[in-house]
Amino acid sequence: MTQNIYDDPQFYEGYSQLRRSVEGLDGAPEWPALRGLLPDLHGLNVVDLGCGYGWFCRWAQEQGAVRVLGLDVSEKMLAQAKALTSVAEITYERANLESFELPESSFDVAYSSLVLHYIDNVDVFFEKVRRALIPGGRFVFSTEHPIYMAPSHPAWFTGNDGRPIWPVDGYLAEGPRTTDWLAPGVVKHHRTLGTTLNALIGQGFMVSHVEEWGPTDEQISANPQWAKERERPMFLLVSAQRP
Amino acid sequence: MTQNIYDDPQFYEGYSQLRRSVEGLDGAPEWPALRGLLPDLHGLNVVDLGCGYGWFCRWAQEQGAVRVLGLDVSEKMLAQAKALTSVAEITYERANLESFELPESSFDVAYSSLVLHYIDNVDVFFEKVRRALIPGGRFVFSTEHPIYMAPSHPAWFTGNDGRPIWPVDGYLAEGPRTTDWLAPGVVKHHRTLGTTLNALIGQGFMVSHVEEWGPTDEQISANPQWAKERERPMFLLVSAQRP
Repeated sequence: MTQNIYDDPQFYEGYSQLRRSVEGLDGAPEWPALRGLLPDLHGLNVVDLGCGYGWFCRWAQEQGAVRVLGLDVSEKMLAQAKALTSVAEITYERANLESFELPESSFDVAYSSLVLHYIDNVDVFFEKVRRALIPGGRFVFSTEHPIYMAPSHPAWFTGNDGRPIWPVDGYLAEGPRTTDWLAPGVVKHHRTLGTTLNALIGQGFMVSHVEEWGPTDEQISANPQWAKERERPMFLLVSAQRP
Repeated sequence: MTQNIYDDPQFYEGYSQLRRSVEGLDGAPEWPALRGLLPDLHGLNVVDLGCGYGWFCRWAQEQGAVRVLGLDVSEKMLAQAKALTSVAEITYERANLESFELPESSFDVAYSSLVLHYIDNVDVFFEKVRRALIPGGRFVFSTEHPIYMAPSHPAWFTGNDGRPIWPVDGYLAEGPRTTDWLAPGVVKHHRTLGTTLNALIGQGFMVSHVEEWGPTDEQISANPQWAKERERPMFLLVSAQRP
């Protein structure tokens, strides 16, 4: 079962102050790479699974998408999304991302940013996405990287030579990981990278691109504290296609 | 440029004493998983890229492969392979795995075990493999996992709670890694998992399965010291298909 942590008041309060919440897509360092996996959205039908504040829905509409559907489990998120963007092309609906229903073969592009690690049963999720896409349709998503999620103590420490080191253990022990990020008891679901890709393939997707995200030289120049994000990937970005 | 470490006397001496060298396929803990990615070889043409002592070639012939070609850069390995298996269906040839030439569309299955991490330019390697396969042909390979290869100090240490921890750094810094495994100055080429998969896709392969190998319960019962191999994957196993 997937936890709806976003409607926890403490979590929501913390989340609403993150750069990616305040500044939108440009506040997310992985956004330029994720955007690079998307096709030209002009004239397309797009669904955003876990739309949050609706920043991506608005961007998709500005790119010329003719219809954008934003789904989210959080009432607070959806209320904020509706307040920020109320245009005819965008629809927001509340949905549990393990039990939502979408019309078949009705979207050209499915997008999902940093939601997958909250989902327990990815097979069901991927199957629903695949059925909602037209043949040839694309699914582009990001998730926390399993190297980032796996450890029993997911925190940097300093090696003998002063370098930052990420202490990996439990990588092959898939299952829930409980952290205290923004609020105590946030439950994420660790899967190996192989499991995620095999689930996609098993549900009929062709894997098009797999990116283990790290900051660019320009991003590190602007934000020197991000340099250690190259020591291990924090995010996994994937593009897949329904044949 | 790829180093031919196998003809280094010290390396070869150490390698020849490894369980996987002495016992063959059954001495390699990842073999059952890798075998599971292979199709039934009966009646097929098979090439083994980096055949070493020829254990796989012999097994493939025993499975009913009608023709098996084993390529290796090491003269010593090939001499041993020829001494171990001299049957009409198996041919051994010396080849540099960055500059070999194979007839086009002539193999049903290409196999490569623990060779890829010695290869600098995987784009060239994958292109040659893809061209050598028939349409629908399969490429099954193993390589050291990038989590295993990345660290500046690739050695277990013990966390505060006594658990073994694998100290990841430099994951996104692709390039050579020099270790002293069996001999000093062994050069391997670190790539992210994404880079390896994208190179396959870029050369026209469809990714069929990605396995980050860890020991089974049965293997740990028989070899309790392998338990920590579940903390981080040592091997990456991949199956891909030429469309």
